[in-house]
Amino acid sequence: MTRLIGVDWGTTNLRAYRFDGSGAVIERRSSTRGAATLGREDFAEVLVETVGDWSDGATTPIVLAGMVGSRNGWREAPYLPCPVDPARLASAGLRVETPIGAAVIVPGVSVTAADAIPSVMRGEETQLFGAGIRDGLVVLPGTHSKWVTMQGGKIVDFATAMTGELYALLRDHSLLGQLADTTAAFDETAFGLGVRRTLAAKSIVPQLFSARADVLLGNLGPQDVASYLSGILIGGEIGALGRGPATLIGAPRLVSLYRTAFAIYGLHDIATVDGDDAVARGLWQIGEHL
Amino acid sequence: MTRLIGVDWGTTNLRAYRFDGSGAVIERRSSTRGAATLGREDFAEVLVETVGDWSDGATTPIVLAGMVGSRNGWREAPYLPCPVDPARLASAGLRVETPIGAAVIVPGVSVTAADAIPSVMRGEETQLFGAGIRDGLVVLPGTHSKWVTMQGGKIVDFATAMTGELYALLRDHSLLGQLADTTAAFDETAFGLGVRRTLAAKSIVPQLFSARADVLLGNLGPQDVASYLSGILIGGEIGALGRGPATLIGAPRLVSLYRTAFAIYGLHDIATVDGDDAVARGLWQIGEHL
Repeated sequence: MTRLIGVDWGTTNLRAYRFDGSGAVIERRSSTRGAATLGREDFAEVLVETVGDWSDGATTPIVLAGMVGSRNGWREAPYLPCPVDPARLASAGLRVETPIGAAVIVPGVSVTAADAIPSVMRGEETQLFGAGIRDGLVVLPGTHSKWVTMQGGKIVDFATAMTGELYALLRDHSLLGQLADTTAAFDETAFGLGVRRTLAAKSIVPQLFSARADVLLGNLGPQDVASYLSGILIGGEIGALGRGPATLIGAPRLVSLYRTAFAIYGLHDIATVDGDDAVARGLWQIGEHL
Repeated sequence: MTRLIGVDWGTTNLRAYRFDGSGAVIERRSSTRGAATLGREDFAEVLVETVGDWSDGATTPIVLAGMVGSRNGWREAPYLPCPVDPARLASAGLRVETPIGAAVIVPGVSVTAADAIPSVMRGEETQLFGAGIRDGLVVLPGTHSKWVTMQGGKIVDFATAMTGELYALLRDHSLLGQLADTTAAFDETAFGLGVRRTLAAKSIVPQLFSARADVLLGNLGPQDVASYLSGILIGGEIGALGRGPATLIGAPRLVSLYRTAFAIYGLHDIATVDGDDAVARGLWQIGEHL
């Protein structure tokens, strides 16, 4: 018996969770039919194909989070300004009719305060609430890393660092990347050098080009460039946004990189939460408020 | 009568100058046969085609600066560590035989001090000496902007900001760029907003993503994104490396952008030197020391 169907519907992937009455995940499915691969008219069909057999066909609640609610998704669920909690997200959810009953698209969250740098998130809010952190700093590393301040179970403020996207751009399209052997294994020494130098420079701006200079001067090998660059960017992110203590939410490999960088920064007590588990729990929490 | 032939041989372009005995440029030529477009065996032929008729065929000195001396150029002229002056550059020049006599390839310059961020330049050293600034901070904006400290006519230290390359990467390949109307005219208001916000944040890291957030939140139009992004990056460069007073060397449009950003930073007395004129005078100065 399915009590709730939850879908984390991102840009490139889709992860679906089937919950029983206690909120336990009794089945999961994933596919590569992310929002960026679909036209507006495809979403209903993909939903039915993916989770149709979990539904009773009409009354099983369905919660959809992530880029499914973006301008180029199924339908746009506008950003809610901070502060935001699960009840507020659920009540502002966008109802869409599907062949297996109504579904609710979770809105994104925005920072629009006059004295803040504007930012938006979509999908991370669901992970955040699933992680169950009521107060403190939470970091979700990724393509667009989020640094989120939680207070009393609400998202009250956040900033975004484009660390993952910058890394991919620089590795794949820049003059730095031309010198890199991108097939090389991760090198912790080169990574740590990048972190330490950026933390000391307090900026990535004078630091990035050293990935090129050090190769031309023979100080770094092509096999070190990608790890060094990763260290510069993660060090720059922690240097700009870091304070402690913090909790990390994400995939194990990325979380481990950030833990290493946080340790160099001087923060050793970093709690971690698995990203997949968090999003499933978050979908359940929002579903409970429907 | 040609006293010296000087060539600024960059990655994508080549600019050649014919000097009379007083050091005046009596003819200039340019082409798109930059170092990146040529194989090692092509350089001699391109040199003869471009300036062969300026030479007496054997004794007219030829000075070549820029990427012609890089690892992928004609022949590698290794970087000279700071401090460096024109006499030192000339004496360390790499002699290559050509069908119109010997030519000297000007070495690049490096920063390798243990407490400094490593950096390299190749071509900018010639512009710097041509600008005739003996002491102070000199900024050469570009793909890889150089911030150079001159003391007693020597390059003693410098740092590099990848501002131009980051701008092109972000505009052409990133999720920010997807929201930009890149055909729009420069918008000084959006540019200034980017500069001010980055100077206030003291980092580009939490700031870059706002180019996306502001469009999604309706605060910026697609026609503003490129100018805003340019402001963020130039503001970040000045925020990280700025101090005054400074001299700017470069193409008029880029110099004008940096003057606008420096004014927002609070520095209004920025001297400027045209980049083309500077490189010609620098080639002459190095030639005088041959």
